[in-house]
Amino acid sequence: MFTLYYAPYTCSLASHIALEDAGATYQLKRIDFGNTEQQSPGYLAINPKARVPAMATPRGILTETPAMLAFIAQSFPEARLAPMNDPFAFAEMQSFNSYLCSTLHVAHAHRMRGHRWADDPASFADMQRKVPQSVGACYELIESRMLKGPWVMGEAYTIADPYLFTLAQWLEDDGVDPSRIPRVIEHRARMMGMPNVKKSIAEELAI
Amino acid sequence: MFTLYYAPYTCSLASHIALEDAGATYQLKRIDFGNTEQQSPGYLAINPKARVPAMATPRGILTETPAMLAFIAQSFPEARLAPMNDPFAFAEMQSFNSYLCSTLHVAHAHRMRGHRWADDPASFADMQRKVPQSVGACYELIESRMLKGPWVMGEAYTIADPYLFTLAQWLEDDGVDPSRIPRVIEHRARMMGMPNVKKSIAEELAI
Repeated sequence: MFTLYYAPYTCSLASHIALEDAGATYQLKRIDFGNTEQQSPGYLAINPKARVPAMATPRGILTETPAMLAFIAQSFPEARLAPMNDPFAFAEMQSFNSYLCSTLHVAHAHRMRGHRWADDPASFADMQRKVPQSVGACYELIESRMLKGPWVMGEAYTIADPYLFTLAQWLEDDGVDPSRIPRVIEHRARMMGMPNVKKSIAEELAI
Repeated sequence: MFTLYYAPYTCSLASHIALEDAGATYQLKRIDFGNTEQQSPGYLAINPKARVPAMATPRGILTETPAMLAFIAQSFPEARLAPMNDPFAFAEMQSFNSYLCSTLHVAHAHRMRGHRWADDPASFADMQRKVPQSVGACYELIESRMLKGPWVMGEAYTIADPYLFTLAQWLEDDGVDPSRIPRVIEHRARMMGMPNVKKSIAEELAI
């Protein structure tokens, strides 16, 4: 049994979908960002980074989406969510996920989390103005060079797919023109049609 | 045979040390940042992200340090650089590496790469002022909660060790007080004494 600590509209959705894809037994615990529960002593004892996602497992707590996604794939090999027996293919998938966490998600975060890296409201506004360009450049690279199609890694659906889908929820709000990245948009639409994705989103919004 | 594309004083050192630790056969190709070679057509054909590291393998090119490090560990299992047969332990190691790339390295990058996320020189100065705090908070979390000791993951040396060591080269320049993170500093000193580390650093500076 796993417990996924999540908040709606955050990157925790990727791990949620992957748990569904894996057929895992899990429960959800919503962290109330509206009341800054992520900074409460109770949650800091679970994840001192004060972020979601975190996942409690029988062995302990895991954080960081790329690591959690790979753990889910490796824990449920029958679900075939990653190329487990091919180190190069596994590394290509991990490289994609690493780019999402360290470059795309970080660029996006400058729209609303500028206080992590600066103090002046004028800097926050400057950062916000840059987001369409910085996030847009990430999506153009994904569109042209990284998304193999039909799934991120090609013919096989992997844990990279729910991760890209999750971050792609935010691209219009980031000011990215969807008409410039038709393959990303098509991938997002196809993901949205999958029962596990619909179920995960509905669960997050219902609780 | 692998080819590691690197630049001195960058995070490519982590993969360089890991290749040494693995006993891999590899060659180095220095990318001349002084002449912005990372943005040359030749290098963009290798890595369209215009960054180092990149690594050419017989199967293709890999980028992103956490993915490259895990690939090196998985390609040379006899070197025992990762807990390959324990998904939870592997995930804990990946989580550490993911934190380094998406949070610590990103915080550091705001000292000299503010143009990635803003346009105004005043914003760059604001970001630079924040670096001692943002990078310092990362190291305090590593010191108090993440670095198990004596190695990052505990008794076993893993690919997380050269990665932390590499980023820890920059902490004084980032304005972090080393006296507040004695365990990180001790880890860095112990790494610096290792022959593979000395050899890797000497090679990067000699070419």
